[in-house]
Amino acid sequence: MTELLHNHLGGRWQAGEGPGTTLRDPVLGTDLVRVSSDGLDLAAGFAFARDTGGAALRALTYRQRAALLGEVGKVLAANKAAYYEIATANSGTTQKDSGVDIEGALFTLGQYARWGDTLGNARFLLDGPAVPLSKDGVFRSQHLLAPTRGLALFINAFNFPAWGVWEKAGPALLSGVPVVVKPATVTAWLTQRMVHDVVEAGVLPAGALSIVCGGSAGLLDALQPFDVVSFTGSADTAALLRRHPAFAERSVRLNVEADSLNSALLAPDATPGSAAFELLVGEVAREMTVKSGQKCTAIRRVFVPEALYGAVGEAVAAKLRTTTVGNPRHDGVRMGSLVGRAQWQSVQDGLARLMGQSQALFDGRDVPLVDADPAVAACIGPVLLGCTTPDEADAVHRTEVFGPVATLMSYRSVEQAQALIRRGEGSLVVSVVAEDPAFVGEAALSLADSHGRVHGLTAEVAARHTGHGNVMPQSLHGGPGRAGGGEELGGLRALGFYHRRSAVQAGESALAALAAQAAALPQ
Amino acid sequence: MTELLHNHLGGRWQAGEGPGTTLRDPVLGTDLVRVSSDGLDLAAGFAFARDTGGAALRALTYRQRAALLGEVGKVLAANKAAYYEIATANSGTTQKDSGVDIEGALFTLGQYARWGDTLGNARFLLDGPAVPLSKDGVFRSQHLLAPTRGLALFINAFNFPAWGVWEKAGPALLSGVPVVVKPATVTAWLTQRMVHDVVEAGVLPAGALSIVCGGSAGLLDALQPFDVVSFTGSADTAALLRRHPAFAERSVRLNVEADSLNSALLAPDATPGSAAFELLVGEVAREMTVKSGQKCTAIRRVFVPEALYGAVGEAVAAKLRTTTVGNPRHDGVRMGSLVGRAQWQSVQDGLARLMGQSQALFDGRDVPLVDADPAVAACIGPVLLGCTTPDEADAVHRTEVFGPVATLMSYRSVEQAQALIRRGEGSLVVSVVAEDPAFVGEAALSLADSHGRVHGLTAEVAARHTGHGNVMPQSLHGGPGRAGGGEELGGLRALGFYHRRSAVQAGESALAALAAQAAALPQ
Repeated sequence: MTELLHNHLGGRWQAGEGPGTTLRDPVLGTDLVRVSSDGLDLAAGFAFARDTGGAALRALTYRQRAALLGEVGKVLAANKAAYYEIATANSGTTQKDSGVDIEGALFTLGQYARWGDTLGNARFLLDGPAVPLSKDGVFRSQHLLAPTRGLALFINAFNFPAWGVWEKAGPALLSGVPVVVKPATVTAWLTQRMVHDVVEAGVLPAGALSIVCGGSAGLLDALQPFDVVSFTGSADTAALLRRHPAFAERSVRLNVEADSLNSALLAPDATPGSAAFELLVGEVAREMTVKSGQKCTAIRRVFVPEALYGAVGEAVAAKLRTTTVGNPRHDGVRMGSLVGRAQWQSVQDGLARLMGQSQALFDGRDVPLVDADPAVAACIGPVLLGCTTPDEADAVHRTEVFGPVATLMSYRSVEQAQALIRRGEGSLVVSVVAEDPAFVGEAALSLADSHGRVHGLTAEVAARHTGHGNVMPQSLHGGPGRAGGGEELGGLRALGFYHRRSAVQAGESALAALAAQAAALPQ
Repeated sequence: MTELLHNHLGGRWQAGEGPGTTLRDPVLGTDLVRVSSDGLDLAAGFAFARDTGGAALRALTYRQRAALLGEVGKVLAANKAAYYEIATANSGTTQKDSGVDIEGALFTLGQYARWGDTLGNARFLLDGPAVPLSKDGVFRSQHLLAPTRGLALFINAFNFPAWGVWEKAGPALLSGVPVVVKPATVTAWLTQRMVHDVVEAGVLPAGALSIVCGGSAGLLDALQPFDVVSFTGSADTAALLRRHPAFAERSVRLNVEADSLNSALLAPDATPGSAAFELLVGEVAREMTVKSGQKCTAIRRVFVPEALYGAVGEAVAAKLRTTTVGNPRHDGVRMGSLVGRAQWQSVQDGLARLMGQSQALFDGRDVPLVDADPAVAACIGPVLLGCTTPDEADAVHRTEVFGPVATLMSYRSVEQAQALIRRGEGSLVVSVVAEDPAFVGEAALSLADSHGRVHGLTAEVAARHTGHGNVMPQSLHGGPGRAGGGEELGGLRALGFYHRRSAVQAGESALAALAAQAAALPQ
């Protein structure tokens, strides 16, 4: 039997009971390691995190906690080679795609270490200035953000085992809130190894960082009113979670990042070969293939003027044709595998649903795999679908096929295109690609309410933009409606989720005591 | 049969089907009016609000919408006499207690009209400055708040039929979001009359303001992903709501303000007759009796040093002894009735539960009513309970008796007192009363995470403070955990609930288009 990874809970490493679940190599099909959370005393472990970990973190200042994030980053950087190996084995990703996850985690942690340092020697945050409540201004109201005295439980998705935990843990730990992470079982190895390395390095207080690998049974039952949960995963699972008494009855704060039918919009001012045209084509092809399209921010729907439908389809297909797919250990391979055969089947099923209302403009499933057995490997070539009657289509606006799949659609007017984009009912990100920057500005104002992020592309920023699907820690990550309604990152805005806002109404001398321990939250 | 109040939906007045529900005078027991929402086409009415009302509001600037709030305020002010009459008849409140609701509504609306005007001729709000994403700063991220393109449904509580709708409608309309209010049936008359007057005055665009009186069946089914719901009521109802597909599956944004076991803490530096002592006693007696204790912010738990337990109990009892209870139409009456006999029974039942673990220090139920039939009127005298073993008590920290009831408890140390306060598991407000302002500041920092508001009382502010239970629009209203986890008011912070945050990533010229239509959200 393979190694059974231990859980870290209650300040110690604990083996779950039973044989556990085996994690596999999605390319070779071999067994890697096992995980089990059976038999853990979750209530005791959570209490230790809250009481011991939370108290230790809250005793520190933001600056001190920021320094801890820096130490965590150093530990992770020192062990990076092992993480890339695990990613290749367990996620089936190329070196470059593993880097999106691993380097993204380190970059985000580093940013929060830097931003946290600017908060200085404070333990609370002032939210705006004190405002007068009495006419003479003697009695005033000062809004304050105080770290919640609970724990932060992260229920994470399989596609970002590294970035997924650290982009959340950075703001949580900086806020003084202890973390318990429950990674998706299928790729839990990398998360577990990272937590293992950080815990063993002893850089964080006992109880500040815990991990439970395996089944999630009982996790929500162990939650108390001041805990918070950040969930990343499917809308179906989110709907189950939300009905749990922890949220429905105990008001535990829940952040959800779920399904998203992200769009790219090419403006009517584009022409074949123009800067906007090339930017769109490059971005769509990249988004379809990075991490085999297993990014919640990936472009799923592409809207182009009717006159450009054919040209864009051909240009994207030409790029996809050069994408070699197979074993990520092979030098010539540009795109590795999906996370496993179950996901492979799910993508095939999703494609079948979409193809009832669209046609394949490029079907990479016909192309032979490089150094991989098609009967075993969870590899799939990219598929570009096309649909010239998107008003009548339904599945394409509702079904997120989580793989290297996008659908090209034609529009007659900008208003129609925006209405079609809205049929996604809330998405994480939309790209607006135009020759004229004013078009980007206007479209951003119009689409902002239904998207957590608007990515504007013009010639001016062609060489500098950060990519449609890349989540920058400076910007909000989340989206309304189908995308779950959550908000992560966005610089120091992320700290809001881990703090409680309170209005302190008092006289000047009482408020002076606050000011001595609190820093102004910078805009 | 009494008059059947009409609903305003789809831009027209509509009668519900059937006999409806009869609203009664809680003092005299007489029938007043009827309400019914049976047979309404809610889907069509909601669509009209979103499409017609929302579009009209969004076409206006913040300054224009602020002016509309000013017009609404004028209409309400012109009809105030009728509102006081309805309040006396339907809520059983004295003139002064009706004023808490009615004048509170006007004051809050006026504040939002004033604050909204400062946002000027913009239709969007900038959230912080643009920050560089590329090293040369050409590609930037600008966070933006855009009005949600849905409607705001208010499901309101019986105790504030006036303030309850306008404290929510002010920020919603100012944000450009159309309002549908579903008042609590038992006191729906005042809300309906106010909406009626505003609609008939024609000051708001068609579809901007709707009202549904009666049953709530079907309301949530008619919600779409960009709608928002603000609920005020019991934690039990909140738990039911949260499990509805609108929230669990469609990510409709929900704000909950629910049960709250608010506390008052007297510092150890107080002595009998000291400023802090007198402040606490006055505040407790007032909070118990204003609106017959039917305020979600009322003090339910009073924590005093062991040595002061007897003196505080006697001083509060002495004040309660002077509180005349009965028909609010009678000049000598200081406290009117509860909202109805069902509420009266609920308070009696709650008292029975609390008295298993405490004793009555003053029981106003023995005192005869003034000009009211005790077999008919929903009147009840104030009851001060006492408990010297609050660590062992359970019900007092969990059971909100929504009437003129509070429990005095003794503590041995400040740490113990704060731990007891936390056993409320999240409350709207705690008052900290002390001789030394530094004690207030320290206690505020310690209690802020579990309270939406900390009210600090010292001699310095004795003559100027705004009252423990009064919700000032400048300050956050809401609280974590049992209190529901919601956030209302807090000045322009309230606009956040009705806007969606989005990060616009683009070059300088594209972001310039945003700046032209957006105002910076002032701190």
